[in-house]
Amino acid sequence: MRKINKILIANRGEIALRVMRTAKEMGIKTVAVYSEADRNALHVRFADEAVCVGGPKSSESYLRGDVIIDVCKQLGVDAIHPGYGFLSENAGFAQKVKEAGLIFIGPSPEAIELMGSKLAAKAAVSKYNIPMVPGTEEAITDVEAAKVIATEVGFPILIKASAGGGGKGMRIVESVHQFEEQMQMAVSEATSAFGDGSVFIEKYIGSPRHIEIQVLGDTHGNIVHLFERECSIQRRHQKVVEEAPSSVLTPELRDEMGRCAVNVAKACDYIGAGTVEFLLDENLNFYFLEMNTRLQVEHPVTEQITGLDLVKEQILIAEGNPLSFAQEDLQINGHALELRVYAEDPANNFLPDIGKLVTYKRPQGLGVRIDDGFEQGMEIPIYYDPMIAKLVTFGKDRQEAIDKMLRAIDEYVITGIETTLPFGKYVLQHEAFVSGNFDTKFIERYFTPEDLNLELDEASEEIGVALTAMLLNDNKGKSGAVNSNSHTATVNSNWRKNRVR
Amino acid sequence: MRKINKILIANRGEIALRVMRTAKEMGIKTVAVYSEADRNALHVRFADEAVCVGGPKSSESYLRGDVIIDVCKQLGVDAIHPGYGFLSENAGFAQKVKEAGLIFIGPSPEAIELMGSKLAAKAAVSKYNIPMVPGTEEAITDVEAAKVIATEVGFPILIKASAGGGGKGMRIVESVHQFEEQMQMAVSEATSAFGDGSVFIEKYIGSPRHIEIQVLGDTHGNIVHLFERECSIQRRHQKVVEEAPSSVLTPELRDEMGRCAVNVAKACDYIGAGTVEFLLDENLNFYFLEMNTRLQVEHPVTEQITGLDLVKEQILIAEGNPLSFAQEDLQINGHALELRVYAEDPANNFLPDIGKLVTYKRPQGLGVRIDDGFEQGMEIPIYYDPMIAKLVTFGKDRQEAIDKMLRAIDEYVITGIETTLPFGKYVLQHEAFVSGNFDTKFIERYFTPEDLNLELDEASEEIGVALTAMLLNDNKGKSGAVNSNSHTATVNSNWRKNRVR
Repeated sequence: MRKINKILIANRGEIALRVMRTAKEMGIKTVAVYSEADRNALHVRFADEAVCVGGPKSSESYLRGDVIIDVCKQLGVDAIHPGYGFLSENAGFAQKVKEAGLIFIGPSPEAIELMGSKLAAKAAVSKYNIPMVPGTEEAITDVEAAKVIATEVGFPILIKASAGGGGKGMRIVESVHQFEEQMQMAVSEATSAFGDGSVFIEKYIGSPRHIEIQVLGDTHGNIVHLFERECSIQRRHQKVVEEAPSSVLTPELRDEMGRCAVNVAKACDYIGAGTVEFLLDENLNFYFLEMNTRLQVEHPVTEQITGLDLVKEQILIAEGNPLSFAQEDLQINGHALELRVYAEDPANNFLPDIGKLVTYKRPQGLGVRIDDGFEQGMEIPIYYDPMIAKLVTFGKDRQEAIDKMLRAIDEYVITGIETTLPFGKYVLQHEAFVSGNFDTKFIERYFTPEDLNLELDEASEEIGVALTAMLLNDNKGKSGAVNSNSHTATVNSNWRKNRVR
Repeated sequence: MRKINKILIANRGEIALRVMRTAKEMGIKTVAVYSEADRNALHVRFADEAVCVGGPKSSESYLRGDVIIDVCKQLGVDAIHPGYGFLSENAGFAQKVKEAGLIFIGPSPEAIELMGSKLAAKAAVSKYNIPMVPGTEEAITDVEAAKVIATEVGFPILIKASAGGGGKGMRIVESVHQFEEQMQMAVSEATSAFGDGSVFIEKYIGSPRHIEIQVLGDTHGNIVHLFERECSIQRRHQKVVEEAPSSVLTPELRDEMGRCAVNVAKACDYIGAGTVEFLLDENLNFYFLEMNTRLQVEHPVTEQITGLDLVKEQILIAEGNPLSFAQEDLQINGHALELRVYAEDPANNFLPDIGKLVTYKRPQGLGVRIDDGFEQGMEIPIYYDPMIAKLVTFGKDRQEAIDKMLRAIDEYVITGIETTLPFGKYVLQHEAFVSGNFDTKFIERYFTPEDLNLELDEASEEIGVALTAMLLNDNKGKSGAVNSNSHTATVNSNWRKNRVR
């Protein structure tokens, strides 16, 4: 047990603010680090102390672990919270933090390292019978051997160049009859593209959903899961809309995937908050993908349905406290959604649209939470991820969370740049999303930029002048004129003009 | 069953926005009414349509029921939500709304009328054995008869002039020996002050706590309670800090008070959202005070612990839908607090401090909700209640909600006027509040304006220049200079300067 009195947040933007808020609530002092591009950033102003650690590029500032550790020593910092991205899954940095006598708020360097390697991770969890996408365990070149495996796995299968990436040298084979030809083409393609003709064979999951399980492990060997998040709505393999719980999991499947996730965490003696990612196929079979050894962007949806503050739990765990609850104490209350609001133009292939937040007004009210790192008048820097905010809504059921999200999107006023808000609105109104019948191919299956233009403004008509006159006459003498203007009735229809485009 | 398609909100400020948000989420069009003083108010901009109904004084605008009903007819409005205050507990208005063929989102005119009269309300609920503060049922002047009643009730007792008010002609009598003398003095005082010497005798509750139970009744005869709120922290008999659940109720007492509240609602065939108020004495005896036949200011704390949207429930009930849950489906999750942020100077006897919101920045993050009706640059009009905002926080337990409230108060930036934020901070840090050992006399017992000055800013020291130099030397050559500024380390301690005073 070692009480943390001062935390340095080795990150920027919304997650830095997110961590600082909880630290303040726990009576812990906060230290921000910032790049030259972030001199005026909110996380700098919000911290008790803030130190500029270098130039605008991440490599010059937020990735400079040694400088950050030095700042900790100078300012009497006890612990570093890495947020997500940057140094959060850098085992070497976690090791150096430890060697400097500081607490790394996250898992051990060994766990980060192990889960950072797909092959090593799969080997480590194998003794727990975690389901994995069936296929070859090692890269092969032999067509006959590959065919045997492919037949065992069952078609359709996927052939992937072992040296490949980004879809290159990748082929879907529908039946055994096409296998030999396709395999030979894949091998020769891979040979010419990468100088390495070896390939992996694995089962092709046609309509996968992305389901991940949040886990928490303490230093006393207790590990629990906090149920699932579904993150199937993605653009360019990046999550845009997340929710908890998933609309497709049964209680039994939730328990089973939860147990698997806890076992994956056990396999690497996991400490802190982590996430075990799975693919779920059309028949509700699930397959282990990987473990993310950090707090995730989409953690708020889990907070909203469990009532837990995940950053608080991370800090308590890092201090050496045992978890204050067991698996059976946890339950799901309601439903939460998160929309990532990016400075991107969804009508233009989601290209970044960096610039100044000329107007920036957040929605409010019951069931709405905004985690962001900007305020009106600020510039979105070009150096970092263009996420402006996470818009989170929650209600007593999924439909209520959707209704609140649609209302919140309408209430959000952002001018000066394009954002993913209209895309979010499109998704949340789409029949496939509303019915829960969707997968990771939502965008390629349904979305074209024209869909955003179709959403015409059903502006309320200008009733103004005529009505004003009517009411003016109608009410005159009824309630008695108090002053000459007191009967004026005017209709205001300007609100919609101010809305988000 | 009658679907509501368009709601007029006969109110202003935060509650008008609160209602409109839920209406939008339900796909219902909204109409705002506003006074000339509120031309630029947020609720006007937020509505689909907005109509000016008169001059700045409430009597010229928000209280003009006939004008408001006319607006409904002109704009095709189906239903009126009265909010709280203004016309919300005006039985005559509710009756006229009904006669105009419109839906009043609230109880029947009869229920409003019945519960609006203390004597009639007590008579109506008497058959349900609702505990009331023991005492005379009618005003008396006879000393001997009064003495018998006082002895039955048990000392200390309170003698109240039946024509009195504001504490005038009110006496606390500690024992039977002083009774005759005190009674005679009270009668003669009342006679000379009010020309009416009759008095009531009732048990004196020395350290009362204010506990109220939220109820919901539908048009099918179902009534449930949504647990309690505690509102004991008051200034000038007005609530300032509210919470749910109360820190003092046992589950058994909660059930018992809940059953009583449901019976009070039954006694007047209550429809919609209402609140049954009780006094709780030091020995946890409770006494019925009155029923408020409207949505209350402090309803958000109940929403946060039950996961229900009370305005949505009100609208569903008004449409004729049966409640979608039974008593046994409801449970308390976590703890919620509300601080009313008034434009008042707590260091100056809570006098209103009206003016311009020069700076207005809301706190954010997990467990924080702000219901308000202003934005930066707006003026607080002098014509209405000076409440700026309701700051609501919630956490998994009471301490977490307190921690979040203290953090949120620190994060709230309001300049240009004085507010009750520093008073809220004082209360939430006070041992009596933290321990749960307080009553409605908190302010008179503990608070003096000097308490606010005692709260010195423990500003972090300026470490700046020296540290910058140190880090500059220390890191030079370690990570390699990327550009001439990349090693600059500066400490920012400005945040606290921007904080709320």
